[in-house]
Amino acid sequence: MKDIRRDTITDGLVIYSSTRNNRPHDKSKNIKEKKQEDKFLGIYNEECPFCPGNEDQNIELDRVESNGEWLARAVENKFPILDNSTENIYGNHEVIIESRYHDADYYNMSSEDFKNIYSLYIRRHKSLSMNDGIKYVNIFKNSGASAGASLDHTHSQIISLNIIPPEIKSELEVAEKHYKNRSSNLYDDIIFSELSYKKRVVYNGNNFLMYIPYASRYSGEARIISKNDKKFADWTNDDIEEIAYIYSRFFNKWEEYQGKIPFNVIVHTNPIGDERNDIYRNHIHIIPRKFNFGGFELSTNLFVCSVDPEILAQELKFD
Amino acid sequence: MKDIRRDTITDGLVIYSSTRNNRPHDKSKNIKEKKQEDKFLGIYNEECPFCPGNEDQNIELDRVESNGEWLARAVENKFPILDNSTENIYGNHEVIIESRYHDADYYNMSSEDFKNIYSLYIRRHKSLSMNDGIKYVNIFKNSGASAGASLDHTHSQIISLNIIPPEIKSELEVAEKHYKNRSSNLYDDIIFSELSYKKRVVYNGNNFLMYIPYASRYSGEARIISKNDKKFADWTNDDIEEIAYIYSRFFNKWEEYQGKIPFNVIVHTNPIGDERNDIYRNHIHIIPRKFNFGGFELSTNLFVCSVDPEILAQELKFD
Repeated sequence: MKDIRRDTITDGLVIYSSTRNNRPHDKSKNIKEKKQEDKFLGIYNEECPFCPGNEDQNIELDRVESNGEWLARAVENKFPILDNSTENIYGNHEVIIESRYHDADYYNMSSEDFKNIYSLYIRRHKSLSMNDGIKYVNIFKNSGASAGASLDHTHSQIISLNIIPPEIKSELEVAEKHYKNRSSNLYDDIIFSELSYKKRVVYNGNNFLMYIPYASRYSGEARIISKNDKKFADWTNDDIEEIAYIYSRFFNKWEEYQGKIPFNVIVHTNPIGDERNDIYRNHIHIIPRKFNFGGFELSTNLFVCSVDPEILAQELKFD
Repeated sequence: MKDIRRDTITDGLVIYSSTRNNRPHDKSKNIKEKKQEDKFLGIYNEECPFCPGNEDQNIELDRVESNGEWLARAVENKFPILDNSTENIYGNHEVIIESRYHDADYYNMSSEDFKNIYSLYIRRHKSLSMNDGIKYVNIFKNSGASAGASLDHTHSQIISLNIIPPEIKSELEVAEKHYKNRSSNLYDDIIFSELSYKKRVVYNGNNFLMYIPYASRYSGEARIISKNDKKFADWTNDDIEEIAYIYSRFFNKWEEYQGKIPFNVIVHTNPIGDERNDIYRNHIHIIPRKFNFGGFELSTNLFVCSVDPEILAQELKFD
């Protein structure tokens, strides 16, 4: 079955092609075995700039610690995409070292680990937002070389910018158009319709809905939408606990489904000082990067999706 | 030096960061040695569906031959992105097998080889354009797994569509806006300004200009613009000979500069039955794929470019 679909959040155009679903998917054959080898061992690597012992290789901005040991750190990026040297385009580029252990990854980390990460995200977002001229604070993670990661030790990145990036601008335009047409928030309407339809829902909690979108440029993408319109910097412990729970459960299920594939996580937050909380909403894109974009995607900006969102949601759903 | 730049053809927003130019680039140390090992040997691979001997594994649509031997073939794609099974989105998906030799690639092929490829591009473009409802015929090549290629044997792909894809639509809008503001063709104006500025020109011929764009989403991209407003299907032998010459010289220089890196070639042609030849123009994007797009690009639709277009043009230019 071939179909053309439009992404409700990004407006991206997608060719949906179900033929590939007939192939057996990459479900791990022996999940229990996988789970065992998957507990991380707490390994250090002397040569890794993010491992304990090498703390002085990075300029620290913030940390989460316990019993005098750091559990996660925010540090300056030594090779920043942006700095503050010009007026045209500027901002800060920081790294969140997400664990002290070299062999930790999203597939084996606990909800406690994810809480530390989100605590730092929120504190750094708040701090960077207060710098002069900053309009957006961008949070993302690359896991695996084919998702753009250059260092193995688990980390994510935060970049503040004096502009609203094109992708956010485009999401804002979609949400604004929706609001004009229906006088309601696009994200609330998506939450309502996904909960009514049920079949694409992965998790439904007090503060967040996780679902598999009907159309996404990235075959197999999962999304989390915040149910409340708090600014990202105002997320409470309750929000952090729930998002950490979602991460730990989701990546566990995701690994069972297809193994430790490379991925990106993109945390799309409210623009700074731009009162559009009535139309926009903090949300997270989790994007599998098993395959590379080829000439078709670059040539057309059309993406081919071969994963049935309903089947995927059934495989991944949790309480 | 950091800068923000906008692509004149695609409207893409680019962060230009020159700091990485201080690193020594990947120029091959021993070019002559490289060139020698680079002559292809005319190897066949029994298991390759595109090699001679396996012709009956594909349904042939057209071919170029000499002395009873095929040199290039157009065949149906066995795993099409699009077919004609639905009315929403349809089209044909074909493969151009670009050489009979399994070890041929753009880096070692001759201008004769590229003539065969372009002869088939043009004939297939013309044929597919005549199908009912087709609005665009998309031609692209993936070379190397990280550029999306699934088979080694050199090939490119042609996909006809009943829609104008978003990327072409966006290029058309940029060109239309330019025409409204200045009453002149964007592509003619780019050719004029690149020829005046000189420093980004790679090759200047009767029918084509090749240059390195001031801003491109893809660090190190090279572009070819047709100087005349013929439809793609109307390109003459003179056009084909010159484009084949450009390919053979360019990929030779490109390999000397950085080795056999993965890449995409995107041939952007006029939409079908849409009389916008006054504003649009056939052009080609050659996109290096040494690095993968990461979360920053996916999150922002902002791309980071670290290659100085003037330095690159000086390295690559030819007569």
